[in-house]
Amino acid sequence: MRIGIDIESGERSYKELIKGALRASELLPDLSIFIIGDTNKVRKEFPSIDSKSNTFLVNAKKIITMNESPASAVKRKKDATVMVGAKMLKNDTIDVFFSPGNTGATVAASVLTLGKTTGIKKPALAGFFPRMVSGETLLIDIGAISDCTEENLFHNALLGGFFYKTIYPASRPKIGLLNMGTEQGKGRHYHKKTFNYLKNLDNFVGNVESYNILDGSVDVVVCDGFTGNSILKTAEAMKELFIVKLREHFEGVSSKITGRIFKHLSHNYSFSDDHLSAISNSLLPQYYGSAVLLGVNGIVLIGHGMCGEDELVNSIILARRLYDERYLPGLRDLNDLKRLFIHHS
Amino acid sequence: MRIGIDIESGERSYKELIKGALRASELLPDLSIFIIGDTNKVRKEFPSIDSKSNTFLVNAKKIITMNESPASAVKRKKDATVMVGAKMLKNDTIDVFFSPGNTGATVAASVLTLGKTTGIKKPALAGFFPRMVSGETLLIDIGAISDCTEENLFHNALLGGFFYKTIYPASRPKIGLLNMGTEQGKGRHYHKKTFNYLKNLDNFVGNVESYNILDGSVDVVVCDGFTGNSILKTAEAMKELFIVKLREHFEGVSSKITGRIFKHLSHNYSFSDDHLSAISNSLLPQYYGSAVLLGVNGIVLIGHGMCGEDELVNSIILARRLYDERYLPGLRDLNDLKRLFIHHS
Repeated sequence: MRIGIDIESGERSYKELIKGALRASELLPDLSIFIIGDTNKVRKEFPSIDSKSNTFLVNAKKIITMNESPASAVKRKKDATVMVGAKMLKNDTIDVFFSPGNTGATVAASVLTLGKTTGIKKPALAGFFPRMVSGETLLIDIGAISDCTEENLFHNALLGGFFYKTIYPASRPKIGLLNMGTEQGKGRHYHKKTFNYLKNLDNFVGNVESYNILDGSVDVVVCDGFTGNSILKTAEAMKELFIVKLREHFEGVSSKITGRIFKHLSHNYSFSDDHLSAISNSLLPQYYGSAVLLGVNGIVLIGHGMCGEDELVNSIILARRLYDERYLPGLRDLNDLKRLFIHHS
Repeated sequence: MRIGIDIESGERSYKELIKGALRASELLPDLSIFIIGDTNKVRKEFPSIDSKSNTFLVNAKKIITMNESPASAVKRKKDATVMVGAKMLKNDTIDVFFSPGNTGATVAASVLTLGKTTGIKKPALAGFFPRMVSGETLLIDIGAISDCTEENLFHNALLGGFFYKTIYPASRPKIGLLNMGTEQGKGRHYHKKTFNYLKNLDNFVGNVESYNILDGSVDVVVCDGFTGNSILKTAEAMKELFIVKLREHFEGVSSKITGRIFKHLSHNYSFSDDHLSAISNSLLPQYYGSAVLLGVNGIVLIGHGMCGEDELVNSIILARRLYDERYLPGLRDLNDLKRLFIHHS
């Protein structure tokens, strides 16, 4: 598998992304890495990188900033990293493109360069969330498109179901529509119509609440990108809040008699930051480090802006699963998806 | 202060609500409690309740179920608990009405019976969230109205700001508009217009993300009820996920050498469920147990369906603060709010 990695668009150092890419290439056989960024900078920091037979440097320095309008910026800045990556994907130089940030720009570059899956009106970002029980739940859309119609939500359901089945081939994913309550008839003006679209799907479980993303009662949760983005960022903030409170709590018990013993233990038996990190990692919603852009003709991963070394390794492993399971060849057009998921009794 | 408590509409036992009400009346002087529900059932379980000078029983058995359309049900079931409570508020028999559930029915009953604040088009539910730093953040709307316009969001900002100032009289609340990013120009079609409305407010900090609800950078976050409801239920689910993971983690270390010591400690020094509960409580988004319905002519608290004894006590304490600070007399119409928050340079 050949992956292109935009090292310029993230919020953390490009060095972390390069380290992550190199580590992934040790883990996964037959991986070729195309590092898209300022090649001078990379060679200076990683002098031996050119000697690696499976690593290639692609020079591109410009990025599309958060303050630019994505739609016009991708047309104007044809040499921006996201445009270079999307074009390499289009030209079959790479199989997967990863960019860690500016979701709007990556979505716009992908749609413009690769085109949408035949029949799909708008792309959607799919991201996995952890659960209270085993497994993971896919939320789609987590931020590609802020306004949506019932048809977009219907397409999100099909795309999400297909993605889930690619990752878990043996499953019959339970698909739910995010709503304010589980009763039918709830929600925005388009939710009732969406419900009518979705009830034709195999394994549609009806309306679900955001609580159900985490409780394991459903595999794929369908929503608009504005709500999905808010859910994702709430989960991230709650994770941090939890770590803050846990730390406060341990510091609190430290002042008491039992606490002194805890403190002793935490020094001598290392219950401390490592343990907090372990708990924290199991809670990270974007624990793959990326979401996958569905509904475009290519495998595009959009990393969290804060994506670092570990998250990139996880993202590449996820991409590898999609590639090995032939996600893209299986997704030719909307009719394929309908045939797969619509029940004909 | 006289409070009416609907004991029939919640998901937990009515007994918990009665216990909570009785406990609150011990904590707060001059509290009168009107218990709205099946009086026979209450007298059977609490035989001495009639002897309490500050507790009154109001007979009403019917509830509006989650499967009924709220708008038509409140017109048909005039003797439902939510209608009885709203009427008591309207008739000045009580100062505050509390109902633990069926948000739609309570909103509909309140609007129909009490009327809306002059100039306000739609009511909104306001709920406090905890923070990583000190203080708390108000999110409005967390589920009264699923569809909204820029004008509704503008009103939510004014109502939320006024509510926050009532609870924290010395503050100049920082008001933010929930969006998918902090850059201007992001969001749904109505967000740009809303931004233009809001930029006239004193202390408008611009677009914020759901992450900022918890990080302390803003005091009042304005959104539509669908998104707010999804944020609330995500936070609740994340809280439960933490507790599950924390428990798993402690069980995990229990199998190792250091873990055995932890296990010993947790038995002998009671680090266990109490500690988990303490952490859990500090994370509870609806830690008051209720959200307050703003934009209607009365103080209406809508409890979480799972609201129990402790949460009701907290809710009554919150109501007391609103009552003592003369929240309602201060909120006569939209123009008052505009005068308070719109900067004239």
